[in-house]
Amino acid sequence: MVSKSQSKLIRSLNQKKFRLKHGLFVVEGVKSINEFLNSSLELYSLLSTENVFLSHSKETQLISLKELQAISHLSTAQVALAVFKIPVPKTDFKQNRLLALDGVRDPGNLGTIIRLCDWFNIQSLICSKDTVDCYNPKVVQATMGSLTRVEVIYTDLHKHLNTLDLPIFGTFMNGESVYSKPLPEDFVIVMGNEANGVTKEIEELCNHRIAIPQFGSGAPTESLNVATATAITLSEFSRRLIER
Amino acid sequence: MVSKSQSKLIRSLNQKKFRLKHGLFVVEGVKSINEFLNSSLELYSLLSTENVFLSHSKETQLISLKELQAISHLSTAQVALAVFKIPVPKTDFKQNRLLALDGVRDPGNLGTIIRLCDWFNIQSLICSKDTVDCYNPKVVQATMGSLTRVEVIYTDLHKHLNTLDLPIFGTFMNGESVYSKPLPEDFVIVMGNEANGVTKEIEELCNHRIAIPQFGSGAPTESLNVATATAITLSEFSRRLIER
Repeated sequence: MVSKSQSKLIRSLNQKKFRLKHGLFVVEGVKSINEFLNSSLELYSLLSTENVFLSHSKETQLISLKELQAISHLSTAQVALAVFKIPVPKTDFKQNRLLALDGVRDPGNLGTIIRLCDWFNIQSLICSKDTVDCYNPKVVQATMGSLTRVEVIYTDLHKHLNTLDLPIFGTFMNGESVYSKPLPEDFVIVMGNEANGVTKEIEELCNHRIAIPQFGSGAPTESLNVATATAITLSEFSRRLIER
Repeated sequence: MVSKSQSKLIRSLNQKKFRLKHGLFVVEGVKSINEFLNSSLELYSLLSTENVFLSHSKETQLISLKELQAISHLSTAQVALAVFKIPVPKTDFKQNRLLALDGVRDPGNLGTIIRLCDWFNIQSLICSKDTVDCYNPKVVQATMGSLTRVEVIYTDLHKHLNTLDLPIFGTFMNGESVYSKPLPEDFVIVMGNEANGVTKEIEELCNHRIAIPQFGSGAPTESLNVATATAITLSEFSRRLIER
């Protein structure tokens, strides 16, 4: 059974203001929930239509599929839904391979980018305050558990980049080819907003302007999707590390 | 004004069987429609809330936003909606840089992959018959006009690959690193289904097994999304072309 107040709380977590107010976020699907259960994150509640979380049988609250559908934030409800506490972000971190997002708005893109950070061992993702919230249910869903391994920090991006003693690589349509440009071991890569790219303010901080060369005959104004551009850029920086 | 029969026809084009029956598909949004208007595709009807297609003013049927919303296939209706005729696929084509999809099901993934083909000058995309239809409204939307420049062919993939005189590179979790493997100028790259990868039947035809090395500490079973894996693989093949 899901109580009225519990149902109201969980449904409210679709909105950022309520996630911030309660310090909670939702994870759906058995596979994703298992990744979060195996992380250092603190479980708040665990609801499932089946007793599938053997290490957490006691905490599992069995509910009907109908009840699950009523509280799910996804268009297709999964077998289970869990609520976790939002961890307190570290303020002091010493990473030397960073990715920064300047206003990425699409939840699917952010989720894919978090998954890419996990794959390419970028442990911290620095986001401008207008970047979509990483605890948005669609983002959590798209990260496939990678959110448990990548630290996402929301901050004043301009101020934050200014404090770092790392070369800053901005991605622009008219930058130098990422394939031929010398790339260092330590770096910050900045990816911009889906429609407008990197803001002027952040552009001024970039020490290097890079681009992914276009091979096709496509319309010249057309750019790659920010998630695929991030994939190619991180792949290229990582390849150089091996060849060093 | 949208007539009842017109509205019924357009709404039916959300389903593959009706697209095939009528030989028609829908494009939404001014930018995308302009790309299709400038291509060799044949326009069937053009509906818009504003007179924005100056070269096609005569063909433009002005409708209200309410009417547009009623026939739109997208969650957020755009300013305009056009219906084009599905072109007859070429059966005889001589391309020597091909991408093949073995059961890609997600419309967003296929759309992103078509956009990547356009960027990396892969002019033909060979799809197994169980790959999502490229005239699905969500695919058309995600291609951002690239569908006008990339030829998508649905075929018996096994038979088709057998007729090609090109080295076949399959992408697998346990393949050789794409970064260090020698890559030829002419090729077919095969990408598999989101959940199950390349089928056994197609795997047997692959002359080379490639993989994108994982740099992070992620769960070993976790793979990259098929669209981002395609981005990285096409980027790597294209980079080698420059360096040749």
